[in-house]
Amino acid sequence: MTKLANYTQGQWQEGKGPGSTLYDPVLGTELATVSADGLDMAACYDWARKHGGTALRALSYAERADLLKQIVQVLQNNRDKYYDISLQNSGTVQNDTAVDVDGAVYTLSYYAKLGGKITGRHLRLDGEPESLARDNVFASQHIHVPSRGVALLINAFNFPAWGLWEKAAPALLSGVPIVVKPASATAWLTHEMVKDVIEAGILPDGALNIVCGRPEGMLEALNGLDMVSFTGSADTAATLRGHPRLLHDGVRFNAETDSVNSAILGTDKDDAAADLLVREVVRELTIKSGQKCTAIRRIFVPEARYESVAGAIAAKLKTITVGDPRNPDVRMGSLVSLQQQKAIVSGIEQLAAHSDVLFDGRKETTIQAQAGNACVAPMLFGVKNPDTHKLVHEVEVFGPVATLIPYRDAEHAFELARRGMGSLVASVYSDDPEFMALAAARLAESHGRVHLVDSAVAKAQTGHGNAMPQSNHGGPGRAGGGEELGGLRALKFYHRTAAVQGSPDILDRLAGA
Amino acid sequence: MTKLANYTQGQWQEGKGPGSTLYDPVLGTELATVSADGLDMAACYDWARKHGGTALRALSYAERADLLKQIVQVLQNNRDKYYDISLQNSGTVQNDTAVDVDGAVYTLSYYAKLGGKITGRHLRLDGEPESLARDNVFASQHIHVPSRGVALLINAFNFPAWGLWEKAAPALLSGVPIVVKPASATAWLTHEMVKDVIEAGILPDGALNIVCGRPEGMLEALNGLDMVSFTGSADTAATLRGHPRLLHDGVRFNAETDSVNSAILGTDKDDAAADLLVREVVRELTIKSGQKCTAIRRIFVPEARYESVAGAIAAKLKTITVGDPRNPDVRMGSLVSLQQQKAIVSGIEQLAAHSDVLFDGRKETTIQAQAGNACVAPMLFGVKNPDTHKLVHEVEVFGPVATLIPYRDAEHAFELARRGMGSLVASVYSDDPEFMALAAARLAESHGRVHLVDSAVAKAQTGHGNAMPQSNHGGPGRAGGGEELGGLRALKFYHRTAAVQGSPDILDRLAGA
Repeated sequence: MTKLANYTQGQWQEGKGPGSTLYDPVLGTELATVSADGLDMAACYDWARKHGGTALRALSYAERADLLKQIVQVLQNNRDKYYDISLQNSGTVQNDTAVDVDGAVYTLSYYAKLGGKITGRHLRLDGEPESLARDNVFASQHIHVPSRGVALLINAFNFPAWGLWEKAAPALLSGVPIVVKPASATAWLTHEMVKDVIEAGILPDGALNIVCGRPEGMLEALNGLDMVSFTGSADTAATLRGHPRLLHDGVRFNAETDSVNSAILGTDKDDAAADLLVREVVRELTIKSGQKCTAIRRIFVPEARYESVAGAIAAKLKTITVGDPRNPDVRMGSLVSLQQQKAIVSGIEQLAAHSDVLFDGRKETTIQAQAGNACVAPMLFGVKNPDTHKLVHEVEVFGPVATLIPYRDAEHAFELARRGMGSLVASVYSDDPEFMALAAARLAESHGRVHLVDSAVAKAQTGHGNAMPQSNHGGPGRAGGGEELGGLRALKFYHRTAAVQGSPDILDRLAGA
Repeated sequence: MTKLANYTQGQWQEGKGPGSTLYDPVLGTELATVSADGLDMAACYDWARKHGGTALRALSYAERADLLKQIVQVLQNNRDKYYDISLQNSGTVQNDTAVDVDGAVYTLSYYAKLGGKITGRHLRLDGEPESLARDNVFASQHIHVPSRGVALLINAFNFPAWGLWEKAAPALLSGVPIVVKPASATAWLTHEMVKDVIEAGILPDGALNIVCGRPEGMLEALNGLDMVSFTGSADTAATLRGHPRLLHDGVRFNAETDSVNSAILGTDKDDAAADLLVREVVRELTIKSGQKCTAIRRIFVPEARYESVAGAIAAKLKTITVGDPRNPDVRMGSLVSLQQQKAIVSGIEQLAAHSDVLFDGRKETTIQAQAGNACVAPMLFGVKNPDTHKLVHEVEVFGPVATLIPYRDAEHAFELARRGMGSLVASVYSDDPEFMALAAARLAESHGRVHLVDSAVAKAQTGHGNAMPQSNHGGPGRAGGGEELGGLRALKFYHRTAAVQGSPDILDRLAGA
């Protein structure tokens, strides 16, 4: 069986020992193994900083953007291969693979284009100079300069392609070398993409590194001027934050963790908005079998709409075919692993014990796959006592699972959404523009993104769960407190901001640097 | 003896038990006690969020800016009293008190003026909308909205006035209620200012709260949508970061910790720049007895200038009179406490064991104060092996102590400055504009502020150690990784940023919100 090698210090190195195994979650086949045992992470980071960082910083932003463009070309050339790997290792149908693979290519292309427009060569000005003395003889100019450290990118199992490139694109464009650590269960696709890009010889030596598995010293070998960008569970984020390098030395840390995202139906009199909500909820419940940090977990509707929305969602869920993604009749594939399946089944039982069951995929859906598969059918719960129900605002079941909740009035809905204590996204469905504007202003405080769907944008809207590179991705509190994407905002994490105080003559020179 | 009461839930409450005592560090007199024992922090925060936050958010930015203006008036009316408290409790001469008290008033005034220009009422737009669909039927607009949580402001002992208001001004302007926790040793001045402002009835109930001492549940009672802004040691920052509310729940944390700041002399042929550096180093060593997070700790000069700069600094240090600030001949007052004195004396011994001593205040300076005072005379060390000397880049002695270091060439100087692993500020002295621009670009990565002094700005420059509200204050890594001040940048910490995705019509409405 293939052992996926690690790429550090300019060479491929197999980890020692048996490592851990990657499986096909539908067929149960063993696909590959990964191991990071025996890697010298201090040497890996040193090499990346010294060779990768120096070479990347010698280029201008536009030149680095051109490298991203070349990476896009490599990925596009190998698209079929990536779809096949995704089918095998993630158990996803083509539509779900597209979110990951084509989403990655779109995000990279976006940053290639955006970066091509940056005019500064080696730093970026932030705002205008501000005078600090009479007659403006002394002034202050803020600048962003690329970090000279290394960025460790720790990704989640659900987006082996997009998760890699949505972090890598802003980092590389910023001139920062990266060490990618994919989640072991689905590391194959990440590994294959990195391998293709390295073999294409696009990036300078040391700019792109990959470690698969759990290397010893992964955090220990970082220093206070390095960065870690993490996507995964809140518990893992807490463990990482607890390491002395982060706790004490100031390693910069960005976290995007799971959260209990909301969809909110407005108080509209007609049914158009409700139809939009139902369609989006079903889409979000089923895309990637609900394994998206951004997926809708809580659905808030006016009390009077509770029954009808419950019925409409249940009716649609009944038509969803679940099973082996090789079967062309199947619309929703598998979870990524039996381990995840176990966790989701247990989460479903936990919610079921304290909620009404409005659609029970365990009874109403037949899984179309061979025995031993990691599939889970959709579930819709209902909670009529959201003010006192603690579970529904806290427990995220990371699969095709959501809960319908009635609200009394708009402020009640916003307050309940906030009970998630920080989420990635809330979507709102209404044809009342005043309600929409109010919802945006209210929900923005506890959500990194607010997605407003009315009849006019029904077809053009980009989807509750899709993280568009133009928009901030990340949320406060429970969602990790991080910020990713959002156009050039993403570059800030990989830069350092300083106020330069001096004579206007010298500050003027910075603009050309 | 006065027990300084705590102000929470709209009332003054004395803590239980004996509490801890505040002393005059020169005379040894007991001044007051503080205790936070028995406070209900959950109730304090709830009250602040519910009453203070709601009332503040009901105002516009400009209206809140007007509140800051009224606070300025109160502080100005009581300036003499604050100077007296500072003399007694901090042991500072008038010039040093000015940095704290007048610095506070200047910073508040700055934010009052800046806030008055904000046109948005309840949120601030961030950038322009970006199209997400053909014909721009769907778009993304980033907005900043005030946090609905409470901000806990934990301050250091060295700036009881400025430390309070440089954090409070952006928080209150943002519409966020605050709970101030001053360092116990110098809590009197903070307490007096808060008391005066509360008695003036300027702020809505719950907007401004103070707890003196160490209340139980101070972090425990926060939730994931609250904020903590901390100034103090890296060790304390690490302890705070390790609390579950921060580690796991995502409480937003800003830290400004001590750092090993640098002053760098250019490679100029004539002596003008060296004179500027010597003047600034002596000023920084002696202002507030070197008890400034931003003070110069490492002085880098070309090898050929080492002896002459050492001599020039030593000659000036010899003229510094140290002792009781009540004595008009005294230029440099006391440290804030005997505890600090003990720590500084021990730090001096540590550095002395591994460095040359270029000026030894222990021998050359006579302390003009009664026995038992907390004064420490200035010290200048020299380290000729900076590449292998670990101590000098790591150990900050938080008193009138700095180390002179020779460098080989410019890149060597920048690299050595970076060995501080993240500092608040580096200052550079040269009349070569090319060197200055290069220094700014190089040092910006590891310093939150780069301060460039040439002959043209000799008189107008604002000082290496002064944190101007126009400029970012905070540094990466060792310096805590935080960002404060910097004009409107400071407001971001007290706001949440969200991408709002919707039809351009609805996004347009946000501008008026």
